[in-house]
Amino acid sequence: MIRVTVWYEYLQEAEKIPEEFLPAGISEEKKAEMQQGQARSAAAIKAVYPKGVMGTVAEHLSGCQDMEVTSVNLYMPECGLPDELLERTDVLIWWGHVAHDKVPDELVGKIRERVLKGMGFIPLHSAHPSKPMQALLGTSGSLKWREDDFCRVWNINPTHPIAQGIPESFELPGEEMYGEPFGIPKPDDIVFLGWFRGGEVFRSGCTWTRGYGKIFYFQPGHETSPSYHNPLVLKILENAVRWAAPGIWCEDLGCPHAEKAPESGR
Amino acid sequence: MIRVTVWYEYLQEAEKIPEEFLPAGISEEKKAEMQQGQARSAAAIKAVYPKGVMGTVAEHLSGCQDMEVTSVNLYMPECGLPDELLERTDVLIWWGHVAHDKVPDELVGKIRERVLKGMGFIPLHSAHPSKPMQALLGTSGSLKWREDDFCRVWNINPTHPIAQGIPESFELPGEEMYGEPFGIPKPDDIVFLGWFRGGEVFRSGCTWTRGYGKIFYFQPGHETSPSYHNPLVLKILENAVRWAAPGIWCEDLGCPHAEKAPESGR
Amino acid sequence: MIRVTVWYEYLQEAEKIPEEFLPAGISEEKKAEMQQGQARSAAAIKAVYPKGVMGTVAEHLSGCQDMEVTSVNLYMPECGLPDELLERTDVLIWWGHVAHDKVPDELVGKIRERVLKGMGFIPLHSAHPSKPMQALLGTSGSLKWREDDFCRVWNINPTHPIAQGIPESFELPGEEMYGEPFGIPKPDDIVFLGWFRGGEVFRSGCTWTRGYGKIFYFQPGHETSPSYHNPLVLKILENAVRWAAPGIWCEDLGCPHAEKAPESGR
Amino acid sequence: MIRVTVWYEYLQEAEKIPEEFLPAGISEEKKAEMQQGQARSAAAIKAVYPKGVMGTVAEHLSGCQDMEVTSVNLYMPECGLPDELLERTDVLIWWGHVAHDKVPDELVGKIRERVLKGMGFIPLHSAHPSKPMQALLGTSGSLKWREDDFCRVWNINPTHPIAQGIPESFELPGEEMYGEPFGIPKPDDIVFLGWFRGGEVFRSGCTWTRGYGKIFYFQPGHETSPSYHNPLVLKILENAVRWAAPGIWCEDLGCPHAEKAPESGR
Repeated sequence: MIRVTVWYEYLQEAEKIPEEFLPAGISEEKKAEMQQGQARSAAAIKAVYPKGVMGTVAEHLSGCQDMEVTSVNLYMPECGLPDELLERTDVLIWWGHVAHDKVPDELVGKIRERVLKGMGFIPLHSAHPSKPMQALLGTSGSLKWREDDFCRVWNINPTHPIAQGIPESFELPGEEMYGEPFGIPKPDDIVFLGWFRGGEVFRSGCTWTRGYGKIFYFQPGHETSPSYHNPLVLKILENAVRWAAPGIWCEDLGCPHAEKAPESGR
Repeated sequence: MIRVTVWYEYLQEAEKIPEEFLPAGISEEKKAEMQQGQARSAAAIKAVYPKGVMGTVAEHLSGCQDMEVTSVNLYMPECGLPDELLERTDVLIWWGHVAHDKVPDELVGKIRERVLKGMGFIPLHSAHPSKPMQALLGTSGSLKWREDDFCRVWNINPTHPIAQGIPESFELPGEEMYGEPFGIPKPDDIVFLGWFRGGEVFRSGCTWTRGYGKIFYFQPGHETSPSYHNPLVLKILENAVRWAAPGIWCEDLGCPHAEKAPESGR
Repeated sequence: MIRVTVWYEYLQEAEKIPEEFLPAGISEEKKAEMQQGQARSAAAIKAVYPKGVMGTVAEHLSGCQDMEVTSVNLYMPECGLPDELLERTDVLIWWGHVAHDKVPDELVGKIRERVLKGMGFIPLHSAHPSKPMQALLGTSGSLKWREDDFCRVWNINPTHPIAQGIPESFELPGEEMYGEPFGIPKPDDIVFLGWFRGGEVFRSGCTWTRGYGKIFYFQPGHETSPSYHNPLVLKILENAVRWAAPGIWCEDLGCPHAEKAPESGR
Repeated sequence: MIRVTVWYEYLQEAEKIPEEFLPAGISEEKKAEMQQGQARSAAAIKAVYPKGVMGTVAEHLSGCQDMEVTSVNLYMPECGLPDELLERTDVLIWWGHVAHDKVPDELVGKIRERVLKGMGFIPLHSAHPSKPMQALLGTSGSLKWREDDFCRVWNINPTHPIAQGIPESFELPGEEMYGEPFGIPKPDDIVFLGWFRGGEVFRSGCTWTRGYGKIFYFQPGHETSPSYHNPLVLKILENAVRWAAPGIWCEDLGCPHAEKAPESGR
């Protein structure tokens, strides 16, 4: 059983901004205006994802017989990832967008350590500059973007486990454009390349290894685009979870003293 | 002119531990004992490196007509790396060992950002688990170690710029053994492999790219081993500085909005 | 001085098909028909490239002070590459299309050996399934294609030597589409990605290392597209020649007997 | 069921050199001398491998419930690999040493094509400069060698499928030394590094992908060393067969004309 934790930022989907997230000392009028904007944002997302952006993904994965899914978000205690949950997570899916800085450095350090020990990590879409992805890859995740484009995803690595069951290309109308240059280290494998009607290209599906952990970044997934309803996108995420699931765990990230040389008994 | 900054931890070489580095509330007796240990450590290093571990390296690089060298250490104000120095550094050499945690996270963030913008970064020997190397590579830098072994360095990438002028192999008696498995991401290039008489092997010279910046890690350089007097080691570091020197700089690590699609005027 | 040899297939540009290239035993009528087709093909190319497809490239490189260019083609004795020329070639540019099978295996073996010893190799456009490229990469070079599309080349590796002086993207109207999946081994570096208006993407500029030799494949360059008049394409080829020029040569591709172990004198 | 074909050169193990392999026009005396040398070579191998060098490997793999093994050698009709066998081979193991040039180019071409379509390929030990390995990797396979050394194999990639069940290191006394530099393209993954008591290191276990096919080269396996009796070596080969077994096959290595642009119906 693969224990999948789906972490979601939630902020854009919440009907109300929590008091503590509001800027200090603003007027009641300004506050009301912000809450109205928030309500509109939440409604726009709900129109596309009645069960929430990640709700759709979590539901699909829950339907996989080999997966056990826990859904959490930033608004929950300990930002949704208390130690005891992290320590029983095999694969962590991460969707964040406007509140990357709300994730505490301490939690980021724990996520990084757990990946190095073997946990799979799947940052999605706007998680490209999220703290855990930066901490693991070492780069900025910088890119170009533009809303409302048409994306054709090309499968350029047909033998990769994540590409199984995926045709040579498929289309995602109404997706956000992410364009090169993309600020990432050289991937172990590029599985998908994205073509955008507006004229850009993107390394849309990339893998890396960090310690014992496997990482897969996948570009589609704007909060008001229906990409997570696309069966091929869901199949890719399902494949990615299985691919990233740890086979063995690293016991210790330290630097042991090799007191006795292998040749000492020679 | 390549502006090289050689950063050195200094702690093991200092004749006295500064008051603020001593554990709080210890007895005068304990304090004296610690200072005696420190003096012995300093003397042992001075015996091998009268000009300091990095002093020897800095002197060699200063002799290169295309390099301008600044030597700094952790004991200096702002840990030796004030913004104005970092901002005129093309290549940063980093030697740390026992005080990695004394380097403030904020400084680590600035180093990381400068590398992503183009600065070369050359962590040496015991810098394998240093904060800047971890922040850029995303891994632990874990390895096995044992003092007082014999190392033969093999040049397995003879066309790499860093290997120019280096023979097929060379020997470093009395070097510290660092052994696999080494907790690093897949290197762009492995330039050197280390053979240790005790029975271990190591990826001793590895390169990575992060953003616009180039990184080279090199294994030899224990504080009481004379490796930095070896002309081939010095040649490797000299080559590495030239290889890592930035050609162009990245202006912006952000994510620009590509408002106008390239195809919009079609 | 970099000694560049520009090898060109020539077949489509020749005004007449040489007798020995005509199928045996065809009627005079058929022969005349073929020669008329040939004349049309030659005229179409001449309209775009009065100096020949590779003539334009050779002229540009000849204008570089550090390059010495020799232009040859398949119709010349020894297919244009006698041993004495190959042995004084530092970088070989290769443009072939419809006569890959006319290049003798023996010559392919010599080219392969020279690359392993250090010669740079730059196969262009329709050379993707050419014998030398297959012999060096081990793959088929398979791809999709369609004439008359619009190509936007994206520079995704701005610090690579081949990308110096090249903007983030540039456009090539009227280029042949080459689309993924592209049958190549994982490149050392992907420098350029191609976007085609028809909907495809392509790894348009890729590098590999084989032995001491460097290889760069570049996609644009259909015989009736004016891409080789584009100053950015010419700049890329110029950069590629300098990047691929050998620093050192491998003396021997054999397997020496290491009679005396390095440790034998221990 | 994975259909494994174990190809063995056999020449050093045959009790007699076949007439057609003897140099033309030699004296009866010389002939007798050569046959005596051959008999000694065969006896030396038989002493270590009563069932033949590859016999031991084939026997182990035959004991795996998911594998079906066919053993062939160069002395058989069509060099042991008639089309109908090649076409039902999922993974081809290849051990050759002194008769690489006896393998016809046409057969090499067929092996290469089958690998590009998906067949796994596992060249062992002295197959480093074999024709199929050269045709797939594009390099010479050059290395240093010396008989009768002691090898310690280090597992530097513990999460790789081929390393499952293999400890951090293990020892092979009496193995042939193969030393760097090794003339291979950058591997996708380095799984094992070899340490030799004589002073050399080697990239002993490397993987590559070519088309749809996976390749694993493994260094140990000299014909008079008992390495193939070592349970860890057998486990590695067993793992490698499973790893290299094709999931999907490529139907066509050609370059299809994409007549209709994906965007044409826009």
